[in-house]
Amino acid sequence: MSGHFNTRELFHLPNNITYLDGNSLGPLPKKALQGVEKRMREEWGEMLITAWNKAGWMGEPVTLANRLGRLIGARTDTTVLGDTLSIKVFQAVSAGLHLNKGRKKILSDTGNFPTDLYMADGLAKLSGQGQHLVTVEPQEVENALDEDVAVLMLTHVDYRTGRMHDMADLTEKAHEKGIITVWDLAHSAGAVEVDLSGCNADFAVGCTYKFLNAGPGAPAFIYVRPDLVSKIEPALCGWLGHAAPFEFEPQYRPGLDIERMRVGTPSVLQMASLSAALDAFDGIEMKDVRARAIELGGLFIDLVERDNPDLKLASPRDTHKRGSQVSFHFEHGYGAIQALIERGVIGDFRAPDIMRFGITPLYLDEVDIEHAASQITAVMSTQEWADARWQHRARVT
Amino acid sequence: MSGHFNTRELFHLPNNITYLDGNSLGPLPKKALQGVEKRMREEWGEMLITAWNKAGWMGEPVTLANRLGRLIGARTDTTVLGDTLSIKVFQAVSAGLHLNKGRKKILSDTGNFPTDLYMADGLAKLSGQGQHLVTVEPQEVENALDEDVAVLMLTHVDYRTGRMHDMADLTEKAHEKGIITVWDLAHSAGAVEVDLSGCNADFAVGCTYKFLNAGPGAPAFIYVRPDLVSKIEPALCGWLGHAAPFEFEPQYRPGLDIERMRVGTPSVLQMASLSAALDAFDGIEMKDVRARAIELGGLFIDLVERDNPDLKLASPRDTHKRGSQVSFHFEHGYGAIQALIERGVIGDFRAPDIMRFGITPLYLDEVDIEHAASQITAVMSTQEWADARWQHRARVT
Repeated sequence: MSGHFNTRELFHLPNNITYLDGNSLGPLPKKALQGVEKRMREEWGEMLITAWNKAGWMGEPVTLANRLGRLIGARTDTTVLGDTLSIKVFQAVSAGLHLNKGRKKILSDTGNFPTDLYMADGLAKLSGQGQHLVTVEPQEVENALDEDVAVLMLTHVDYRTGRMHDMADLTEKAHEKGIITVWDLAHSAGAVEVDLSGCNADFAVGCTYKFLNAGPGAPAFIYVRPDLVSKIEPALCGWLGHAAPFEFEPQYRPGLDIERMRVGTPSVLQMASLSAALDAFDGIEMKDVRARAIELGGLFIDLVERDNPDLKLASPRDTHKRGSQVSFHFEHGYGAIQALIERGVIGDFRAPDIMRFGITPLYLDEVDIEHAASQITAVMSTQEWADARWQHRARVT
Repeated sequence: MSGHFNTRELFHLPNNITYLDGNSLGPLPKKALQGVEKRMREEWGEMLITAWNKAGWMGEPVTLANRLGRLIGARTDTTVLGDTLSIKVFQAVSAGLHLNKGRKKILSDTGNFPTDLYMADGLAKLSGQGQHLVTVEPQEVENALDEDVAVLMLTHVDYRTGRMHDMADLTEKAHEKGIITVWDLAHSAGAVEVDLSGCNADFAVGCTYKFLNAGPGAPAFIYVRPDLVSKIEPALCGWLGHAAPFEFEPQYRPGLDIERMRVGTPSVLQMASLSAALDAFDGIEMKDVRARAIELGGLFIDLVERDNPDLKLASPRDTHKRGSQVSFHFEHGYGAIQALIERGVIGDFRAPDIMRFGITPLYLDEVDIEHAASQITAVMSTQEWADARWQHRARVT
């Protein structure tokens, strides 16, 4: 059995709540309160405009991304924070299409998070040069790699089921066909081991408010393979991606290296919260987080399956193919999740029938897992999911 | 003389600082501290993921935009918050190009803020259908309106000089030629009277961290004329702009009305700060803010010109053509601004030779203006601008 982390006390966890939804919004790191207050009171309040330099705000999208980089196998100055994940997907895919001019297909899978598909499809339509999005079933991706594909855009860990692609293998196979890869790490960063550099991944994007606990609306990130970045002509040519933003030149000149993926003014208050959230990972290796998550996830599956035959495991049983969430199919899953929330166990529901639970070892242990499983059993055995208050959802979907 | 506002006490202003840079970053509204702390402690901390509904986070990009709408003449549900100004420019111009298919020109002026020009140029290149950006001198815009122009994209108030376009007149003339208008209100919102509805403006965008005082990295906004919005096919098809984001459909369907201009997860902590910042405008009419700014700006010009013949007014003298900042040309302006900051008077410098001062009646009065002018005179008479520490800038530009 791997060791517990001593990080639980770093987080504010409400009384009588067992939180298995850190895959959607991580809990409040206690230091974030002080970090944001300091930023507001001592930096914004006292330094005013001069804080952009004096307090280091201007450089933070790179300096904080460098701290995050350790958790995803990204070298120094290959990652930058800003915007939302949707915007970062747009930047990565458009850069990939430009690097692979002449090819028309953006390949993805049907399990990808909708915003990735929507953004890529919207980009293809905007370009109007015959580029188009093609989706296949997740297990068909490998067979669909051919020399018409410009960009392979995948979410590493499926948001509903936790099914995890083999990043190293698919990247290598994509590269054999000259395909640029874009990996969405929304459900990976801070949850599973990721080695962007070792996989030779071309682009990666992700958000920081899930397993990284940076708070609602925290900035997204984008990673670019170091030898590709100088070839990129950004599609979103914001002034903070300019080589010399404060020269206010009439023509855009892309910034050096990863700086060119910046767009506009970063969300400075949110970055203070992110900084505090990253502190919780100091001294922790992702391989240890991962080992502990596998242990807790396995226990959760065992306990839920033992007592609840109506819940069918939606996540892969093979731990090499499962990220850090565990999901079950249940026809009345929406009601069951609502009933669980009333009992103080927070998971979430994803249409059409997925009950989803995030396994986050930084602040969960066996006691939480056992309690959550026992409450699921209580909801199922009493059919609390059938409560009339939650039946409207059944009509909608 | 128009009345003073009783709003100064609502802002944290550092001791011994006179702040004339609210056109770049407004000061900290005291209530923002409590607002953000409450958001973090009571909403994120206690409600966790359920705060998206329970605390109203999901609807806030529209509900807060509706409060802001009063200050820019926008009707209810015609404006939405999110992203950065650069991204909102991209959305507005791409929508305008789509509405005016067949026309190839995006017309702007050479005084526009660079990010607007960069984003529009990048968009045109991405589309690759012969669309292109054309810029003319600000006074030539009217003559350049012709039936090849798809979109007229202008910043209402020039970021360097404060020169203000006549929005009603140019919008009308643009419409006569079938041109879609995009107005950037970065230096207008919360500063001057704007009547988007009355002007029949098609699109407007802006930021909230300048004259609206919402804090560094606060979200931008976009306005769409109510009868146009249903015709827009968004170029940035983020999931929160989908008609039913939580159905996770494989195909994008644009949301109802202004909701379709949303992209990704909004910056929830920054919105709490924005909410507090808008409180400072409660019960205040923009016509009164404007009248008082004209009074204070006039006093500032009189005092600076009286004693400093080397400073040449860069802003229009005609108050109908000047926004809420006052700028002077001075060859050694960079050093002069640095010397002023050392003296506790904060303005800023814009290349090549502009000393820029924001006139913000919510927290400035005659005492501040007289003090700032006296310090400018002290810097000029002692040639503090010549200090060796600030000469590097002269070499750079």
